[in-house]
Amino acid sequence: MSKRLVLSALAQFTAKTAGRNMTKAAYVAVAAGVAAMVVLTAAPAYDAAHHWVDAVLWTCLAYFVFEWLVRLRHMARQGRLALYVFSSSGVVDTIGALAVPVALIAAVEPRTAWLLSILWVLKVVPGIPGLRQLRRVLVLESGPLLSVLVIFLMVVFLASVAEYFLERDVQPATFGSVPAALWWAVVTLTTTGYGDVVPITPLGRMVASLVMICGVGVFGLWTGILATGFAAETRRDNFLKTWETVSKVPFFATLGPAAIADVTHMLRTMDLPARTTIIRKGQQGDCMYFIAAGEAEVELPGKKVPLGEGAFFGEMALLGNNLRGANVTTTKVTRLLVLDLVDFRLLMARHPDLAETIDAEARRRAQENE
Amino acid sequence: MSKRLVLSALAQFTAKTAGRNMTKAAYVAVAAGVAAMVVLTAAPAYDAAHHWVDAVLWTCLAYFVFEWLVRLRHMARQGRLALYVFSSSGVVDTIGALAVPVALIAAVEPRTAWLLSILWVLKVVPGIPGLRQLRRVLVLESGPLLSVLVIFLMVVFLASVAEYFLERDVQPATFGSVPAALWWAVVTLTTTGYGDVVPITPLGRMVASLVMICGVGVFGLWTGILATGFAAETRRDNFLKTWETVSKVPFFATLGPAAIADVTHMLRTMDLPARTTIIRKGQQGDCMYFIAAGEAEVELPGKKVPLGEGAFFGEMALLGNNLRGANVTTTKVTRLLVLDLVDFRLLMARHPDLAETIDAEARRRAQENE
Amino acid sequence: MSKRLVLSALAQFTAKTAGRNMTKAAYVAVAAGVAAMVVLTAAPAYDAAHHWVDAVLWTCLAYFVFEWLVRLRHMARQGRLALYVFSSSGVVDTIGALAVPVALIAAVEPRTAWLLSILWVLKVVPGIPGLRQLRRVLVLESGPLLSVLVIFLMVVFLASVAEYFLERDVQPATFGSVPAALWWAVVTLTTTGYGDVVPITPLGRMVASLVMICGVGVFGLWTGILATGFAAETRRDNFLKTWETVSKVPFFATLGPAAIADVTHMLRTMDLPARTTIIRKGQQGDCMYFIAAGEAEVELPGKKVPLGEGAFFGEMALLGNNLRGANVTTTKVTRLLVLDLVDFRLLMARHPDLAETIDAEARRRAQENE
Amino acid sequence: MSKRLVLSALAQFTAKTAGRNMTKAAYVAVAAGVAAMVVLTAAPAYDAAHHWVDAVLWTCLAYFVFEWLVRLRHMARQGRLALYVFSSSGVVDTIGALAVPVALIAAVEPRTAWLLSILWVLKVVPGIPGLRQLRRVLVLESGPLLSVLVIFLMVVFLASVAEYFLERDVQPATFGSVPAALWWAVVTLTTTGYGDVVPITPLGRMVASLVMICGVGVFGLWTGILATGFAAETRRDNFLKTWETVSKVPFFATLGPAAIADVTHMLRTMDLPARTTIIRKGQQGDCMYFIAAGEAEVELPGKKVPLGEGAFFGEMALLGNNLRGANVTTTKVTRLLVLDLVDFRLLMARHPDLAETIDAEARRRAQENE
Repeated sequence: MSKRLVLSALAQFTAKTAGRNMTKAAYVAVAAGVAAMVVLTAAPAYDAAHHWVDAVLWTCLAYFVFEWLVRLRHMARQGRLALYVFSSSGVVDTIGALAVPVALIAAVEPRTAWLLSILWVLKVVPGIPGLRQLRRVLVLESGPLLSVLVIFLMVVFLASVAEYFLERDVQPATFGSVPAALWWAVVTLTTTGYGDVVPITPLGRMVASLVMICGVGVFGLWTGILATGFAAETRRDNFLKTWETVSKVPFFATLGPAAIADVTHMLRTMDLPARTTIIRKGQQGDCMYFIAAGEAEVELPGKKVPLGEGAFFGEMALLGNNLRGANVTTTKVTRLLVLDLVDFRLLMARHPDLAETIDAEARRRAQENE
Repeated sequence: MSKRLVLSALAQFTAKTAGRNMTKAAYVAVAAGVAAMVVLTAAPAYDAAHHWVDAVLWTCLAYFVFEWLVRLRHMARQGRLALYVFSSSGVVDTIGALAVPVALIAAVEPRTAWLLSILWVLKVVPGIPGLRQLRRVLVLESGPLLSVLVIFLMVVFLASVAEYFLERDVQPATFGSVPAALWWAVVTLTTTGYGDVVPITPLGRMVASLVMICGVGVFGLWTGILATGFAAETRRDNFLKTWETVSKVPFFATLGPAAIADVTHMLRTMDLPARTTIIRKGQQGDCMYFIAAGEAEVELPGKKVPLGEGAFFGEMALLGNNLRGANVTTTKVTRLLVLDLVDFRLLMARHPDLAETIDAEARRRAQENE
Repeated sequence: MSKRLVLSALAQFTAKTAGRNMTKAAYVAVAAGVAAMVVLTAAPAYDAAHHWVDAVLWTCLAYFVFEWLVRLRHMARQGRLALYVFSSSGVVDTIGALAVPVALIAAVEPRTAWLLSILWVLKVVPGIPGLRQLRRVLVLESGPLLSVLVIFLMVVFLASVAEYFLERDVQPATFGSVPAALWWAVVTLTTTGYGDVVPITPLGRMVASLVMICGVGVFGLWTGILATGFAAETRRDNFLKTWETVSKVPFFATLGPAAIADVTHMLRTMDLPARTTIIRKGQQGDCMYFIAAGEAEVELPGKKVPLGEGAFFGEMALLGNNLRGANVTTTKVTRLLVLDLVDFRLLMARHPDLAETIDAEARRRAQENE
Repeated sequence: MSKRLVLSALAQFTAKTAGRNMTKAAYVAVAAGVAAMVVLTAAPAYDAAHHWVDAVLWTCLAYFVFEWLVRLRHMARQGRLALYVFSSSGVVDTIGALAVPVALIAAVEPRTAWLLSILWVLKVVPGIPGLRQLRRVLVLESGPLLSVLVIFLMVVFLASVAEYFLERDVQPATFGSVPAALWWAVVTLTTTGYGDVVPITPLGRMVASLVMICGVGVFGLWTGILATGFAAETRRDNFLKTWETVSKVPFFATLGPAAIADVTHMLRTMDLPARTTIIRKGQQGDCMYFIAAGEAEVELPGKKVPLGEGAFFGEMALLGNNLRGANVTTTKVTRLLVLDLVDFRLLMARHPDLAETIDAEARRRAQENE
């Protein structure tokens, strides 16, 4: 009986966790586990509530082991076991499940063993929004970034040897060896400046000043490169996301590929949950919307008009009168295409046919609502 | 009699503060109040002038309570009471008016109670120029920004556990628990580097160096993302602000929507108070102006020529002779459209008709002034 | 006799210093003066060579007073005295000339009085390259920059009161008053982190962590805004500088305004002194040059061919063979227009007529050199 | 006999090191040498293994001397001796080879003499990827960057004199002279903030706060300028690299120069070693590839289809079906042109002829594979 329950739970859990992206439960487990581990190391707090802390830690561990086994089973069934085990997320799951137990079995002092539970945070990585984008930028700009890094290291080495030479006799304690000077150089070039190791000879300070200014320069280059990469990447991402959608909206179907590419550059996609108010009556409006997927509802006095896929709304705001005339709310999960006033003008200018379609529709609605 | 005075004051005050944006008086009150509160906490200074300080504090408090009541009354009359009370500015007003009194009534030690008057600074928020723009950027770029934040936190956690493990035995005082190590990690990753907690073991320092370099990277990503967002946002804002104006200037009325969109991209709006000198005789000039609203005045030898809405001036500077020929001053609050030399060239190139109009006008004026 | 000499010197000096920008002598004087002042304050160094230091200081002072008088005279003669006196550079000159003497006369302790000579560095300002550009960016972006500043201040105030409240009992010495906490807040939010004032309570540290992260954010916004402004400004500057020149080069005279605007976007101006080698034989080449003003010389085997204004060279590198065929050197101060390979392609694509002209010329030269 | 061996080794070595860029061996030598030098200065570590450390140091030195001699000989043979000796890399080689020996001969204390081996890191410079690009940006933006630097220095001087004046009486030890104050100013303006010198007077702290805020500003300007420069430079570089290649791909041969310039802007070059998998079956695909040089191989069920220069693949992913249909692997070192989905759309839109060619080819293959 209870076996059946467990199996059904297992089945449904499997379904949930089939995909890569984490379940809410997992996020909670990670947060709780790490928090507990942190408390574990803080003597007074731990002594006060060690039962609870231990309980949480063991529960989280149990959860991750369970999750890992379920996934293994699931993948094995689909014959994708090897694929999963050697995939990044697979490795992370394995480590999360085994690191602590192995350490405990290996008779490592418990408090130390549990530190390994910090590795659970790695489970969050795949869930990070826009991580793909970040990675792409780093890859594409890797050339310049790398060269900045090399320059960084060269400055560190040259500066530290110079400082060692200049300061060793005056402060043998802090600048007594090049490794010590290297520490100083990194702390200074990143403009962190702990102040635990500081040059005191005039020449030493001059060298240090140069290093700091280089530090600002390195920051600048680094950022400049990333900023450039990002601008390009963002444009690209937006375009890809939007293109798919645009080409599906009947309203744009009439356009040739050139025009569609053109339109795509102007639109922005927006995904909304159900029962979200998109437009609030009486607000200032500076954009119109196309429904790419899902459904919305216009709350007119007395009646509610549903808008299906491909319908558009909010165009009034772009045709002179700036105040929204009615509430519009989503009824399902909905993907919208947003057209800013700016781009609306351009669109109208370049594709008069679209302009007419919208005008006509707008007029029709205006009459209707009278 | 005095009652009438108060009422009239009240009435006019109401009118003033009907809008969201603050009155000058309020700004003064915030500044004075906060300053007084600051002094209140600095023993010597306070003892020297506690009468004054108390006086200022109570006055400011009285002012804010009064303002709040007036607004409530005003809104109540317009039946927008609920709307106001739950609006951000409404909440801020309420807190500003009630926080301190409530604390005092709750018998909190006065010096502590008055600290709450720091909340008055929140009243400044709605008045911040370009805040809307900032917010939009943060919203649009929230995806990447968030992922950077998550990465930031992951580095903090991983690094702090590592450091705790490496340093706890050597410096139990500073690295005795993960929370302490977390503090170190944040201080280091933001490259703040207080130096109150510093690793001393070789391995610990290597980890720390990596963290610092990551810190520079995080800065870079963060900035790169914001820079990108800003570039887009600025363009957009400018366009919106300008479009409205351009379409109203008769000079451009002849243009089709495409051309107007085009022109709009080239112009920049500028709002000036009355009696401001726009052009100073004999200066280098590299732009011309269109009057979108208001009025300006050209000071020609002997006479003053007024220029009304839609008129333009300063074109001479763009048609060969670089030195301004006469002073031009606003007579009312005026909104100008500025056309840079750069864009002027392009405009002339793309819309020869406009070029002719301007040439003709320029010639006419030249003759006139002979 | 000697009088005449002085007068002639004066006359010629006047001529030199008529313009705003400084003479080399002045730069030397500023450097020497400031250096001497710095030494003046460093006891040992000064005692060693006080005669020299005093000598330098007095000489520099004399020089600046002299320069100031000469300029006054010069301006008075041209009847632009008032204009000059109240101009920024006029004020700076006056201060530079009078500050120290006045202080000495007012019986200020000499060492302190001479500190005022630091104001001499202000004389360098007008000479800073691209300062105009910087200013323009700051002005155009002032809106967002200001709002970031306001946000910065708000964070500072809120954070410092919070810290004061949290830390005052634990560390009355450092967090004993809000002003002290304000100092901490600024040091932290700018991520400077001296470490002289550091929160130690858990809550205090959490607040501090938030402040640091805000600090990174403020950096990011600030930079993002400036980066955006700069991109726009640089484009604009380049265009202006180039436009003038392009329109004067006969080679482009045939083009219509639209094309010229187009070409201008592709070219970059470059000013070279006489006897500078522009192209070195056997080098890799990826751009061609037009002579806008001045003269250059091609060193062919046996003969030297002069190239006057409007001539172009280096086109071979863009027409297939990548290695420079001969040295080209300027004979006078020369302004060149540089056309990168990238833009050359585009230019050829958009303006085939130009392409032909260049091809023809190239062929002609090729034959000639056979 | 052995003589012959050496000579042959020499000959082949010469061949290897004829070019500028370093041999792997050299990189190893630099790393090992510097590491050894670092150890040399760390007393305990050195005492433990001084035989090894000395061995490594002498070996590296021998290597660099040898390399230097070989290059001299090689260049002498080619009659480019002078050219090499005075070239940057020649100077670096000479220093690397002679610095330490000279110091040792000059009877400098050995440990100090060996410090000079840090100069070996300079040998890495020519090998830094994208250094040319960095240099170009710094050169092109030198104007604004320089002005920021001047501003930086002015703030440093003004601030340090102010602080000296305000703090000298309270902390004669740290602010006793302007040079000391200068040190403080640099440490603060770069937001490094060691905390070894900190103002304590209220006025002093206000000045310091201003300096810190300026510091953030300087960072911002610096970065803004570099970001702008980079954006431009990256575009340019990409274009140059790609142009050469595109014009060689027969597929694009039919296009006019305008179109080619257009296409070039869309493509990205990618160099791959042999036996690299470009496309993995079943992956998501969002770009197609053209083979500019080398060869690739499509692994279809049962057979392997080779693709030579000018061939393209991966187009299916852009024509509707998103999953890659087969593995594609390089068989030689291969240069690819990558066309992103984004740009593919635009390309198709602007050059329908290309679209047809690709469609046709795609259809042909589809049938073939049935």
